Amino acid sequence: MDKCLFCRIRNRKIPSLCVYEDKMVYAFLDINPVNEGHTLVIPKVHAADFLSITPSELPGLIWGVQKVAAAVQKGTRADGFNLIVNNFRAAGQLVDHVHIHIIPRFNGDGFQHWLGKPYEDGQADKVKEKIRTFLK
Amino acid sequence: MDKCLFCRIRNRKIPSLCVYEDKMVYAFLDINPVNEGHTLVIPKVHAADFLSITPSELPGLIWGVQKVAAAVQKGTRADGFNLIVNNFRAAGQLVDHVHIHIIPRFNGDGFQHWLGKPYEDGQADKVKEKIRTFLK
Repeated sequence: MDKCLFCRIRNRKIPSLCVYEDKMVYAFLDINPVNEGHTLVIPKVHAADFLSITPSELPGLIWGVQKVAAAVQKGTRADGFNLIVNNFRAAGQLVDHVHIHIIPRFNGDGFQHWLGKPYEDGQADKVKEKIRTFLK
Repeated sequence: MDKCLFCRIRNRKIPSLCVYEDKMVYAFLDINPVNEGHTLVIPKVHAADFLSITPSELPGLIWGVQKVAAAVQKGTRADGFNLIVNNFRAAGQLVDHVHIHIIPRFNGDGFQHWLGKPYEDGQADKVKEKIRTFLK
């Protein structure tokens, strides 16, 4: 994928601040961090989004994420961290090579989470059935 | 883990709107959805946070997440979705049994992402080295 920004980064055709690399993943600092140490982990094999990763490639990716997340938390002395994967434009995905954000978090850093609200009566059951249709 | 809310849900001691279950995972609707169809996937084996999951249990969890995420997107006819895992209180984790949020997203639904900002000169290299210390 010569045109993919993240393939070019992982092939070192574009410089990045690499924190970790193994057979399956490449991890590097986000250049616009939400907090210092904000890291992206990508599979080395090109996959546009989370649904496009073949099942055989998922374990290597998630092992890498766990390993890097532990190091990000320790290295930044963070109090916690978020893992975030945005899929498709509507969800904020900007580069079409799946990437897992590891965002170190600090007590009182002020980042707000989206608020949910309860379902109206009977609506949750309908939604549940619609989703289950695709899991049978 | 008799006292764990999510262990009790997955053992069906507390009712939930289950969309999927297999040997490794249990998936159910969030009762306060950010958008309709907002789903939580949990490992059946208790693990407080993402770093506490044993490596052997990670593949089954992530395969379940991929399967459920595809169904959530189709079932809600969403334009995209976010996967989010909050770890520790500082990151917004409220229940100490690791859970992956699958949040369906729709064009123009208005949810904002946290803004990042560039590092000051030389700072990124320092952060990179601190993280790498724990990956050697």
